[in-house]
Amino acid sequence: MGKLRVGVIGGGQLARMMIAPAIDLGIDLKVFSETHDAPAAAATTVVGDYTQLASIREFAASVDVITFDHEHVPLSVLRALEDEGVSVQPPSRALEFAQNKLLMRKRLADLNLAMPVWAEIKTENELQEFLDANGGVCILKTPIGGYDGKGVRVVRNVGDAADWLTAEGLNAAGGSLLAEEKVNFVREVAQLSARRPSGEFAAWPLTQTTQANGVCAEVICPAPNTSAELIAKAQQIAQTIAHELGVTGMLAVEMFETPNDRLLINELAMRPHNSGHFSIEGSETSQFEQHLRAVLDLPLGSIRARAAASVMVNVLGVDSATDLLANLDVALASHPEANVHTYGKAPRAGRKMGHVTVVSEDLQFAQTEAHATAKALLQG
Amino acid sequence: MGKLRVGVIGGGQLARMMIAPAIDLGIDLKVFSETHDAPAAAATTVVGDYTQLASIREFAASVDVITFDHEHVPLSVLRALEDEGVSVQPPSRALEFAQNKLLMRKRLADLNLAMPVWAEIKTENELQEFLDANGGVCILKTPIGGYDGKGVRVVRNVGDAADWLTAEGLNAAGGSLLAEEKVNFVREVAQLSARRPSGEFAAWPLTQTTQANGVCAEVICPAPNTSAELIAKAQQIAQTIAHELGVTGMLAVEMFETPNDRLLINELAMRPHNSGHFSIEGSETSQFEQHLRAVLDLPLGSIRARAAASVMVNVLGVDSATDLLANLDVALASHPEANVHTYGKAPRAGRKMGHVTVVSEDLQFAQTEAHATAKALLQG
Repeated sequence: MGKLRVGVIGGGQLARMMIAPAIDLGIDLKVFSETHDAPAAAATTVVGDYTQLASIREFAASVDVITFDHEHVPLSVLRALEDEGVSVQPPSRALEFAQNKLLMRKRLADLNLAMPVWAEIKTENELQEFLDANGGVCILKTPIGGYDGKGVRVVRNVGDAADWLTAEGLNAAGGSLLAEEKVNFVREVAQLSARRPSGEFAAWPLTQTTQANGVCAEVICPAPNTSAELIAKAQQIAQTIAHELGVTGMLAVEMFETPNDRLLINELAMRPHNSGHFSIEGSETSQFEQHLRAVLDLPLGSIRARAAASVMVNVLGVDSATDLLANLDVALASHPEANVHTYGKAPRAGRKMGHVTVVSEDLQFAQTEAHATAKALLQG
Repeated sequence: MGKLRVGVIGGGQLARMMIAPAIDLGIDLKVFSETHDAPAAAATTVVGDYTQLASIREFAASVDVITFDHEHVPLSVLRALEDEGVSVQPPSRALEFAQNKLLMRKRLADLNLAMPVWAEIKTENELQEFLDANGGVCILKTPIGGYDGKGVRVVRNVGDAADWLTAEGLNAAGGSLLAEEKVNFVREVAQLSARRPSGEFAAWPLTQTTQANGVCAEVICPAPNTSAELIAKAQQIAQTIAHELGVTGMLAVEMFETPNDRLLINELAMRPHNSGHFSIEGSETSQFEQHLRAVLDLPLGSIRARAAASVMVNVLGVDSATDLLANLDVALASHPEANVHTYGKAPRAGRKMGHVTVVSEDLQFAQTEAHATAKALLQG
């Protein structure tokens, strides 16, 4: 087999967290970053523009497989690489459904998977009709380019979306908007799984995710008080999507759990995901190692939990002066059980600067400690 | 506090395994390696000769603290740095006892710590006397420069040591040799601990180590069938040594357990140690993270075990064609629970090429799986 070389496009914290398992296994990880000081700087071999085929092609020639830190590489670039024989994992035919939420809705509908009520919107009239049919409120999304709450709005009248419904706005969104019912959910959950090109599939226990202002705030694995039926249903959904869409590597399916025990698919991510950071310490194989194994078509590792509960809390920047390292001393002193991760990013309000995971037999303890550590990292 | 910068002298697998926790915490790790393709190449910022003060001085100027992957940096170099105000952890006054086994024996004797019977040897007569007094056999060591079975011989007559007792041989050994009784031990154990410059100390549960041909082969943590008294005694020994010798960072105390429940100190290492590799997965804080925290004088992390048993098995090169990555596919397929680490070293017979850890509630399972995975990595 010789040297195993993985190329990651995007140098953010997801690429950063692939470095450790790559070193462990002996995988040669190369990262194509946008800046020299990206979070994954330690493994960055090229700094460039990921929309330029020539740059990506040259990068691809230095590795055995191309994978991703984010979903923003143009499909045209990926298809060109694939046509030239480059192994792109996940392949463009799967990634298009992660890049375009409207295509995703249409594809999942074909598969008869449960989702919020949705509609494609191109005009004020269509939006008004959708609002009228769904209690006067909807979640309006730009099908492409959104992340962490960007490109998503709660809309109660067509005026709220006036800018998105201009010719310019529609063009930037990919030609139309996606309206979805505002789901009355009990909680949000995420199903993590991994799949190899040759078919092997592994699904983690369901996680419970809590968002604040559209950004993931807390993840608990396994999701507390979850029936065996719901767990099985979630894994079945992930397996169907991975298999039918041809997803390889990590897949995160974000879902709403409804009062009547339904699971409605919210978003898909085809890469390691914030809801899986707990797995670095909480799982026998982390999502980052699993992703590397999967895209190389190596056998998947055990996803057995290392303890009864894992709690992950994100640490978001307060402002441009946020300095987690300045508070590390105080945070670690009070929380010896906490596993602290910082991302080496320039601070900014609301930006994901790091996360904390606590793995314990005691969920309450893990939750309290994880939040307290995150707070200490921000306040010292 | 600002940026936390740690400089490691030596680019071997110990420095390599510091990279992951450095990235996790956000520590800027820089490594001074001997070659560009050293195991810690990913963090190597300088390639040079660690015996040259000028090179080391320049490297030290780029970091907040200097620490080590090995114990071979000349004390004169370290003392010069310390005189110039560089933070060297562990300091030269501690390291001299790890560099020179004869000094170590004398110092531990002053502390009334239990050891094998030993003597300083400069002549054939002294060696003969020691043999006569100790059943006609001894372990003869060169006080400086030995590792992994190098610089250690079982001697039954003075002729076995003729080359070491020449003027040249004695000079290379540091002026004299160290003779030690061949201990009739039940097993070998190692006590891992960490200490901050400001005094905080943490000791892992005792580990059981098994050597083959003078090289560590298997480590089990916690050491099976160990009384609470022995565990406490081992931790007390480590604490005494760390405190009295002023050790900072990781300290490994290798000991013989005798049939009458005594612990006789064999060797000291003042750095992460092969007997602590299990802690990457088996402990809430790994020895590599703990070492980085300790040398930066950051609070130590929890050393609680993540499961009832951790078993680590070394993977030694068979010959110059050994290729662990070529067998990774087969090894991972049969052993999903195994955590595989490869070191990126050129293969050589007997060389430490990687290790496997299995963490489980079931010791027997962990042991069987770890050995089987190591075997698969060598044989495919």
